[in-house]
Amino acid sequence: MYQFRNDYSVGCHPIVLEALSKANTEHVVGYGADKYCKDCADLIRSLCNAPKADVQFMVGGTQANLTAIAAFLRPWESVLSPFSGHINGHEAGAVEATGHKIIPVHTPVNGKLSPALLLPVLEECKDEHLTKPRLVYISDATETGGVYTKAELTELSLFCRHHGLLLFLDGARLGCALSSQANDLTLPDIAALTDAFYIGGTKNGAMFGEALVIMNQALQTDFFRIKKQRGAVLAKGWLLGLQFQALLKDNLYFKIARHAVETAQYLQGGLKNLGIPMMVESPTNQIFPIVPNTLLPQLDKLCTYEVWGKADEDHTVVRFVTSFATPLESVERFLKTLKDIS
Amino acid sequence: MYQFRNDYSVGCHPIVLEALSKANTEHVVGYGADKYCKDCADLIRSLCNAPKADVQFMVGGTQANLTAIAAFLRPWESVLSPFSGHINGHEAGAVEATGHKIIPVHTPVNGKLSPALLLPVLEECKDEHLTKPRLVYISDATETGGVYTKAELTELSLFCRHHGLLLFLDGARLGCALSSQANDLTLPDIAALTDAFYIGGTKNGAMFGEALVIMNQALQTDFFRIKKQRGAVLAKGWLLGLQFQALLKDNLYFKIARHAVETAQYLQGGLKNLGIPMMVESPTNQIFPIVPNTLLPQLDKLCTYEVWGKADEDHTVVRFVTSFATPLESVERFLKTLKDIS
Amino acid sequence: MYQFRNDYSVGCHPIVLEALSKANTEHVVGYGADKYCKDCADLIRSLCNAPKADVQFMVGGTQANLTAIAAFLRPWESVLSPFSGHINGHEAGAVEATGHKIIPVHTPVNGKLSPALLLPVLEECKDEHLTKPRLVYISDATETGGVYTKAELTELSLFCRHHGLLLFLDGARLGCALSSQANDLTLPDIAALTDAFYIGGTKNGAMFGEALVIMNQALQTDFFRIKKQRGAVLAKGWLLGLQFQALLKDNLYFKIARHAVETAQYLQGGLKNLGIPMMVESPTNQIFPIVPNTLLPQLDKLCTYEVWGKADEDHTVVRFVTSFATPLESVERFLKTLKDIS
Amino acid sequence: MYQFRNDYSVGCHPIVLEALSKANTEHVVGYGADKYCKDCADLIRSLCNAPKADVQFMVGGTQANLTAIAAFLRPWESVLSPFSGHINGHEAGAVEATGHKIIPVHTPVNGKLSPALLLPVLEECKDEHLTKPRLVYISDATETGGVYTKAELTELSLFCRHHGLLLFLDGARLGCALSSQANDLTLPDIAALTDAFYIGGTKNGAMFGEALVIMNQALQTDFFRIKKQRGAVLAKGWLLGLQFQALLKDNLYFKIARHAVETAQYLQGGLKNLGIPMMVESPTNQIFPIVPNTLLPQLDKLCTYEVWGKADEDHTVVRFVTSFATPLESVERFLKTLKDIS
Repeated sequence: MYQFRNDYSVGCHPIVLEALSKANTEHVVGYGADKYCKDCADLIRSLCNAPKADVQFMVGGTQANLTAIAAFLRPWESVLSPFSGHINGHEAGAVEATGHKIIPVHTPVNGKLSPALLLPVLEECKDEHLTKPRLVYISDATETGGVYTKAELTELSLFCRHHGLLLFLDGARLGCALSSQANDLTLPDIAALTDAFYIGGTKNGAMFGEALVIMNQALQTDFFRIKKQRGAVLAKGWLLGLQFQALLKDNLYFKIARHAVETAQYLQGGLKNLGIPMMVESPTNQIFPIVPNTLLPQLDKLCTYEVWGKADEDHTVVRFVTSFATPLESVERFLKTLKDIS
Repeated sequence: MYQFRNDYSVGCHPIVLEALSKANTEHVVGYGADKYCKDCADLIRSLCNAPKADVQFMVGGTQANLTAIAAFLRPWESVLSPFSGHINGHEAGAVEATGHKIIPVHTPVNGKLSPALLLPVLEECKDEHLTKPRLVYISDATETGGVYTKAELTELSLFCRHHGLLLFLDGARLGCALSSQANDLTLPDIAALTDAFYIGGTKNGAMFGEALVIMNQALQTDFFRIKKQRGAVLAKGWLLGLQFQALLKDNLYFKIARHAVETAQYLQGGLKNLGIPMMVESPTNQIFPIVPNTLLPQLDKLCTYEVWGKADEDHTVVRFVTSFATPLESVERFLKTLKDIS
Repeated sequence: MYQFRNDYSVGCHPIVLEALSKANTEHVVGYGADKYCKDCADLIRSLCNAPKADVQFMVGGTQANLTAIAAFLRPWESVLSPFSGHINGHEAGAVEATGHKIIPVHTPVNGKLSPALLLPVLEECKDEHLTKPRLVYISDATETGGVYTKAELTELSLFCRHHGLLLFLDGARLGCALSSQANDLTLPDIAALTDAFYIGGTKNGAMFGEALVIMNQALQTDFFRIKKQRGAVLAKGWLLGLQFQALLKDNLYFKIARHAVETAQYLQGGLKNLGIPMMVESPTNQIFPIVPNTLLPQLDKLCTYEVWGKADEDHTVVRFVTSFATPLESVERFLKTLKDIS
Repeated sequence: MYQFRNDYSVGCHPIVLEALSKANTEHVVGYGADKYCKDCADLIRSLCNAPKADVQFMVGGTQANLTAIAAFLRPWESVLSPFSGHINGHEAGAVEATGHKIIPVHTPVNGKLSPALLLPVLEECKDEHLTKPRLVYISDATETGGVYTKAELTELSLFCRHHGLLLFLDGARLGCALSSQANDLTLPDIAALTDAFYIGGTKNGAMFGEALVIMNQALQTDFFRIKKQRGAVLAKGWLLGLQFQALLKDNLYFKIARHAVETAQYLQGGLKNLGIPMMVESPTNQIFPIVPNTLLPQLDKLCTYEVWGKADEDHTVVRFVTSFATPLESVERFLKTLKDIS
């Protein structure tokens, strides 16, 4: 079976496993107060060119999203999110469970927000009988694989600051976004342009873990307390610092991501050569081919993947995802097999 | 340094690490829908003699407590907890953040609840202008190392059922409780006497993880959704099933616990022989010596431990905890060194 | 000035004021445990042909909505509401503040939900990574003045029961809905077809007050406690029972409503005769004329009203509302004046 | 029957009723944006010597408490309250339902907090694994009738400011507190010494209503939005401004309160003369006689009152409350009858 189900369906990168194994018998203080977490936070601050950033490690993305949003907002404030945003459609009401309304904003299929899309929503929310929009949630890469350019993120950032909005970037797939050919952003750019963002580990080589970087100093206060309150403090907290150290040292994190992107791009190109169109042209590690329904039984035997939705009566959008664990040769063989089939 | 800080200040048991390493390159479906989790849930049901139990793996104890309590209660219902209960004093208001009041009940120093302690509180809460007590939270072992006997837990269970109260047992240290000489309970007993409980992994050999066992079928509905909502679904969920399988196979879990308890008991006996009294006679892996303040500087050089509180002007209660990673010989050497000092 | 701002911009009906004045020096037990509330609850049960209904008086509509929804749902359950529903757009995130997601469903301009609109949303929500839709919120009359027919409400009710959904009807303007010529529903119909609904007082002759009728007995448990918890128990609770008694005795409630509807319909007909079209044909006491922007300055001098939205570059939708306090003659004079102007 | 059940068991003061009646047919803009509310807010600012205060009218005390506390606190912050505080024991978990823990502090029987009582609790809460105490909740008068002196409130206020704590004063019975002989505080003093407080109407002559005064400007932002969100905005909001205007004009509010206090003090003195001791010497309008259980059946026939608790096997603490509606002569007759009985 060729494996394209997702980028979190296999354990961690061997170098991460080695780091975990090596430190396994060491006695370390708990709850993230250890030297691995401290050193790794320093490393992240350095990589982001953000000496005053607060770095908070958490286990998963929903946890990072809900804890950050709950920490940043006052009770009457709401979140502006792309309709396709992970917090809107895949987290079982996690943000609402913290008391905050999400106002979904329709976007193009690439899932990207822009000032032009946000402005009319802001206008409608001036009425005091409504919640006050206060935080703009975006993802880079988006749920459909899109990436923000530096011009786009800068424009969005300026818009947010002008309108008193916080800009929060879900970076569950930040590695792949920054490794895409469509990208011209750097970690320091992202740090400079957002109020907070996270560097996703789970989907890019870690066993688990997300590194939340809080740039806006007004949002840093007491973050540990709310993290504890939401069950988001790992007892053996050093496991997070340890993994991110292994990933960020020697640029492993971006090497992994580049490999995932290149593999997906190769797959996307190959499928298009076979006459299979895409729902959206994705520059990252998730691609969205539109396949004839008649092909699905064969695909089921050949590989793992996810059904994304119906394209029309006779066609289905599927999602293929690659990761550090996707050998380029297996993509080549998969394409060849597919060619033989069709 | 001798290590008595706690039972979660070191990585996992070598057998758990081996299991994680061995499965590391396998492709597995996410979110706990995998075969490791399914097989492990079956194993737990079998060990608990509870074929209809729902088993839910989570990463940590606060997460398990808050998710279970939020799932089990209606908004106007409250929790009866020992004043010393972990949810009352160590979780940064995690239960209240889900909207529920905790009514703390004062207990003896062993931290155990009983019908006699609960009854007057229930009487006071009949007034409809108050929350309705609905769930009794206990820990086994308690925060001060106490364990429930079968007679005590049976009496408490009958009381709860008679009064329409759910009984929820925090088993973060269940291994040590059940391995204590003071214990006469089994996993099937606990399953039969409670509405839900969890088998703690973090403090007994796992890298992380708690296995929540929901016995009361009315409480099982839709649990996955609220787990997702609270950020408590691990993307690579099989890591939890995998670890618990390694722990519960061949009785490793209880071997580990028994070692921890025996080591702690040896330490407790040795300290008493040195004339050091205990705050409470603990039968498990946490002990609470009362040491002269003058001894603290030397202890600081000799070992890791936690200060529990002030005993009197001249004495301090400290906490020593043992685990699978505490060699008996190191306790022997520690006691010898201490004897030489005093 | 002619007064068309809304149906809650004047005190109460004289008969309600008289009842309040007459009972003013009486000593009565608080919190709704008094004879006025009890007798009035009996009266409502009788009018609804619902001997087992629980009747709960509350001060206002947002309070009734948020308390009922918080009481009825489990944390992971969500609300299906018309996009134009009051809870979605006018209550400052009140439902989300109780932890529940609202899933807005687009409807025709009349604001009415139907099985055909709900079914695709239900399909999308089967995924366990989403909230579980559990309650359908509708209003009768809707925010744009629409009313449900008996056939429509029956179909919706059957659909909800078939899909395990609760049906909750916001009756802030129930009086006008049931008094409309487009209506063929009765109070007993509404009681039989919904799980809960409320009879709005604030917008139909009361000083304040809504009477929530909980039909589904599983939803009645402990309602007083959550009402207290949400600050929705009025200390001098009898003021609510008293007012509803005055309104429901001798059919005053429906006389008031019929007057409001007739006055609005007369106004709607008159405006159409003047060549002013409507955004939607409303059969109740709210109407939505589309007026040329050039008319607005004159309207501002002539009457109170609300701007509903922009129709096109040159036209604005306004809202005119009538109530018991709108004399028919004033509508006649208003129409005459308008005719003279245009 | 003599009426001592409480101070909210009768309608409103005749002057308030007159004001409500007089304005009943007037058309007024809703939600508190009217001239009555505006003028009354100005009047309150003037009486409090607080030109920058924000004045927010609400219907009831629980509503005022929960909305203010939810607005003022961040999610991880908690409330320090006397154990006997209304929010801790009589509001069905209203504060916890907003997500905040209440840390109850034991006080003398008079229910008053002091720096000496708060300091040790603060010390215990420095641990980041706990909530952060941020708001001190007090009542004046307290639940047992106690009043703060200027020296006491000043000391408490300085303590709070020194420790970064907000001071919130529940003034449900502020009228009686300030009218007591034990009192030396004024409205401007209270305004200057607290971050927010409210002037209770419900228990002092209004039909309903509490006037929240927010002194701390950082706490004023967006208050209307959260008030709306919690269902605490009255549609016919002017009814609140109107009533408070009637009460505060010509000092009616304090005349009412003085009468209530004098009547209660006369009753307290008379009971003591009859040899009936008090649970606590109350200087306000609530008194707490300790009566022999054998007297209760006769009391039940003679008057309304509440049972407060058990004093010993043979004695019960009861509560008698007076109000503007308690004629002095009825107290005289009651005492005479009681004397004849005993």
